[in-house]
Amino acid sequence: MTTKTQVYLSGEIHTDWREQIAAGVQEAGLPVELTSPVTDHHASDNCGVQILGEEGDPFWRDHKSAKINAIRTRILIEKADVVVVRFGEQYRQWNAAFDAGYAAALGKRLIILHDRELNHALKEVDAAALAVADRPEQVVEILEYVLSVR
Amino acid sequence: MTTKTQVYLSGEIHTDWREQIAAGVQEAGLPVELTSPVTDHHASDNCGVQILGEEGDPFWRDHKSAKINAIRTRILIEKADVVVVRFGEQYRQWNAAFDAGYAAALGKRLIILHDRELNHALKEVDAAALAVADRPEQVVEILEYVLSVR
Amino acid sequence: MTTKTQVYLSGEIHTDWREQIAAGVQEAGLPVELTSPVTDHHASDNCGVQILGEEGDPFWRDHKSAKINAIRTRILIEKADVVVVRFGEQYRQWNAAFDAGYAAALGKRLIILHDRELNHALKEVDAAALAVADRPEQVVEILEYVLSVR
Amino acid sequence: MTTKTQVYLSGEIHTDWREQIAAGVQEAGLPVELTSPVTDHHASDNCGVQILGEEGDPFWRDHKSAKINAIRTRILIEKADVVVVRFGEQYRQWNAAFDAGYAAALGKRLIILHDRELNHALKEVDAAALAVADRPEQVVEILEYVLSVR
Amino acid sequence: MTTKTQVYLSGEIHTDWREQIAAGVQEAGLPVELTSPVTDHHASDNCGVQILGEEGDPFWRDHKSAKINAIRTRILIEKADVVVVRFGEQYRQWNAAFDAGYAAALGKRLIILHDRELNHALKEVDAAALAVADRPEQVVEILEYVLSVR
Amino acid sequence: MTTKTQVYLSGEIHTDWREQIAAGVQEAGLPVELTSPVTDHHASDNCGVQILGEEGDPFWRDHKSAKINAIRTRILIEKADVVVVRFGEQYRQWNAAFDAGYAAALGKRLIILHDRELNHALKEVDAAALAVADRPEQVVEILEYVLSVR
Amino acid sequence: MTTKTQVYLSGEIHTDWREQIAAGVQEAGLPVELTSPVTDHHASDNCGVQILGEEGDPFWRDHKSAKINAIRTRILIEKADVVVVRFGEQYRQWNAAFDAGYAAALGKRLIILHDRELNHALKEVDAAALAVADRPEQVVEILEYVLSVR
Amino acid sequence: MTTKTQVYLSGEIHTDWREQIAAGVQEAGLPVELTSPVTDHHASDNCGVQILGEEGDPFWRDHKSAKINAIRTRILIEKADVVVVRFGEQYRQWNAAFDAGYAAALGKRLIILHDRELNHALKEVDAAALAVADRPEQVVEILEYVLSVR
Repeated sequence: MTTKTQVYLSGEIHTDWREQIAAGVQEAGLPVELTSPVTDHHASDNCGVQILGEEGDPFWRDHKSAKINAIRTRILIEKADVVVVRFGEQYRQWNAAFDAGYAAALGKRLIILHDRELNHALKEVDAAALAVADRPEQVVEILEYVLSVR
Repeated sequence: MTTKTQVYLSGEIHTDWREQIAAGVQEAGLPVELTSPVTDHHASDNCGVQILGEEGDPFWRDHKSAKINAIRTRILIEKADVVVVRFGEQYRQWNAAFDAGYAAALGKRLIILHDRELNHALKEVDAAALAVADRPEQVVEILEYVLSVR
Repeated sequence: MTTKTQVYLSGEIHTDWREQIAAGVQEAGLPVELTSPVTDHHASDNCGVQILGEEGDPFWRDHKSAKINAIRTRILIEKADVVVVRFGEQYRQWNAAFDAGYAAALGKRLIILHDRELNHALKEVDAAALAVADRPEQVVEILEYVLSVR
Repeated sequence: MTTKTQVYLSGEIHTDWREQIAAGVQEAGLPVELTSPVTDHHASDNCGVQILGEEGDPFWRDHKSAKINAIRTRILIEKADVVVVRFGEQYRQWNAAFDAGYAAALGKRLIILHDRELNHALKEVDAAALAVADRPEQVVEILEYVLSVR
Repeated sequence: MTTKTQVYLSGEIHTDWREQIAAGVQEAGLPVELTSPVTDHHASDNCGVQILGEEGDPFWRDHKSAKINAIRTRILIEKADVVVVRFGEQYRQWNAAFDAGYAAALGKRLIILHDRELNHALKEVDAAALAVADRPEQVVEILEYVLSVR
Repeated sequence: MTTKTQVYLSGEIHTDWREQIAAGVQEAGLPVELTSPVTDHHASDNCGVQILGEEGDPFWRDHKSAKINAIRTRILIEKADVVVVRFGEQYRQWNAAFDAGYAAALGKRLIILHDRELNHALKEVDAAALAVADRPEQVVEILEYVLSVR
Repeated sequence: MTTKTQVYLSGEIHTDWREQIAAGVQEAGLPVELTSPVTDHHASDNCGVQILGEEGDPFWRDHKSAKINAIRTRILIEKADVVVVRFGEQYRQWNAAFDAGYAAALGKRLIILHDRELNHALKEVDAAALAVADRPEQVVEILEYVLSVR
Repeated sequence: MTTKTQVYLSGEIHTDWREQIAAGVQEAGLPVELTSPVTDHHASDNCGVQILGEEGDPFWRDHKSAKINAIRTRILIEKADVVVVRFGEQYRQWNAAFDAGYAAALGKRLIILHDRELNHALKEVDAAALAVADRPEQVVEILEYVLSVR
């Protein structure tokens, strides 16, 4: 594999799991390009009205931002070889599950990352995955194994 | 449209929203075939071990059931002309958001149904929909309008 | 061909070209099922707010209606064997050209119907068509020829 | 995203909106490759007969040119990550709407750019877009946001 | 297989091979629906100008007819389960080879039918087929075998 | 689901597992249409030379038969909603594993059926399945559950 | 367009039309990569038996060669942005027409190149093309126009 | 062909056939990138539990490893231009046949490599191939021929 493997990191934005994976990938020298949604919560929520103009109704405020974010996320999921989706304890994270479904229907290789307490709630999502991990370093180890030369 | 329009009803299983839509569709005499996942919570959770044998680890218990349920849901989403996804107040309902993402990637027409309090949490899912409704009768009205002869 | 050929009639809604084609198809006894968008201009413009609730901003008023109409039009274009798109003298009819492009990308057989004065303006759309007609009865004749037994 | 994002600029050819976007993209140093149709109106209208020989009937004159132009536009739309379609006040611009429909059916990310007076006429096209802008600099801002590292 | 298998018969129109296959299929009572292009040579050559108006240049005369015929042939190839292509001794029959290539790229099951003298000239076409026959009754036997219950 | 679910039964032809499933499906009154390859070993091996003429080299003898059988199997796998693949103790059954891979790449729902002793040897095939059963009646129970109304 | 446009040159191998196009492309400095089948007639006919072993029956001799050549041609057509197919006066050239059909079904941009005497015989093939040329330099001019910056 | 042709080498892991092909490719200086599954039998069997945690039931032990290996193999088959599948005398090698079926359904060019004694057992797999070789050097010769400039 001479071109870099594209790995999209979807989901939770309030812990440092992406940084942990990035550090592990760098340390192992893996031929991986990590991509992600815009993880700045404020920017992500406000890009719509900030760029395209204010909205009175919060529904349309959200709508415009969600669609601009979708420009980025859909391009990156479409280009991804592997999609990692992280579910945390907080928030409902329906966009993470949406991304997992979207990636599954496109035939992308899915790795789902979450604490074991969420096993039952995520059973349908996990059932579509090729690996279910509970720690970021396991994702690095999977990538390392999968991209090993021999 | 002489063949019936296939409408898959995904999501929440603890309220009677499917029955309300079914009653409305029948009353209006719409040429619609409504389909849904297995909505018997107990059966859905236990089909795996009941049919394929007991498991010690609850993860695999869930896994076997989730996959058998996926046989049904993936066939029905693939055949659907319209996919309606209902989000309720209870539970995390990641499978509903997963279905929405799956259907979106297949280019299915999405109608999302939820209370307005969930607007912000569901903004990415709503952004992929052709209609966002908050009451089941609106789904019936949409189908009635969409399937009207003139 | 024992199943009926699906023919979607897109475009102009202010003349009786659809009725002329329907009459011709019926007279010739062709195994054709004609489909079309909602052609009631008022209903088509207002379905969004009527079903899903009023909007202050006319952009979102239009947006909700356009998306509900898209539920119908995308299902019908997807199921169509032939897509006929009629351009008239009035209005900009960008939705007609949009439908033509959408159908072309899906590999549908396109017949474009318009007066000869529009030839230059429609050259890119016509270039994607398998037939360019200027009278509705020609569309009927094409269907009659194309569906003839011998 | 180490490879450049491909952005196809379709539509109006009589104002300098493409140059404005190009200047903005360059100023911001965005990893974007902008592509467009042949925007020289005369060349675009005459390439067919100039290369492949004169035609008596203006319909076929146009036809030959439109098809040669389609070689370029279809390759570029197929390769595009984002398709921006600009509608101006002049001309009918059915080819712009056709491109929008074509791109939508291929699942491309659409940004529609037009003055607010055209909102109602373009509602079906806008309904398929992930962003509707009225000034070229907004397109640059969207690209800047969407391609931002964090 | 309760629905009838769709078998498209492409190619040579100057011998009675289609009638032979039809007779064989009927005699054997096979659940097959045979389809074909318009095989009336005169009608097929003239449908364009007859329906859409005269042309001075024979190239465009042919062009208009070829495209109207393509409406029929592309619908039928798209719906076909099996495509049979017959090459005879006369004429160049490039449309038959074109149909074979078209069907092959769509993943259709190809049966090629021709005299053995044409083996070398048709080697690339035959290489894409699941069966190469030299007599129409062999096509019937293949269909009979392939559609046999046990 | 008003149309019957298409279930293709691939693999082992020397035991009565297909009959067991057929009996179970009939007894339960399931809306299922079972399909299968030609399971008459002799006919399946000889159809090529019997219909298309004798071959000296056994490789081409086999080749002609294998391709004629592929006409049937590829049509049926393409039409299937569910593909069941049975592996037995005897023979190498590479065609069964080939069918499983073929069906998996098409996104078909896979059920793999084999004795537990084959678990390790079939781990890659099982990993692509939505259910792994070791007795034919489990396949019936899965279909019964999956096709249950509520 | 920073990556080179892939142009596959299919068809006639007994005149120097490929060399003429190559010279024109080079002279014009076009960002084009020209590809072609193996044009050494002898090598192309014999590669099968030369590499994989002798065959008694000329049908299988041809078959093995045709399939090995298909490895090359299908990869190159799949990667092509534009497919040029040249028909000459000699030979039946069914493989050229097959390639044209194959490329058309994949949605590739087709340019057909032949003398005007072949117009009637090639009408169905021409009808699928975006340009029909009769001299190689016209193909160069089309590429030059299509790849021009402005 | 300026980019390297991607060739995936699937199947048997207990002989040095991959090394033979690699040596031949290197000696001939072919523009080929060879890829393969993880061929370290022990690592391949244990990656699942080693990375994601121990399992009591050997079925799930195997399952976790098979799925992690599938991340690699599916990416590589998806990216491959040519898939070579080697069947040896030992083991059942159902994963090799599964890969062949998977690659065939994706339209990949297949080369099957095995001793002649396996001809009958592999007839269905061979029937989907563009070449059937019995020695690794033949695969090199095919690649050399297929990638030759003239």
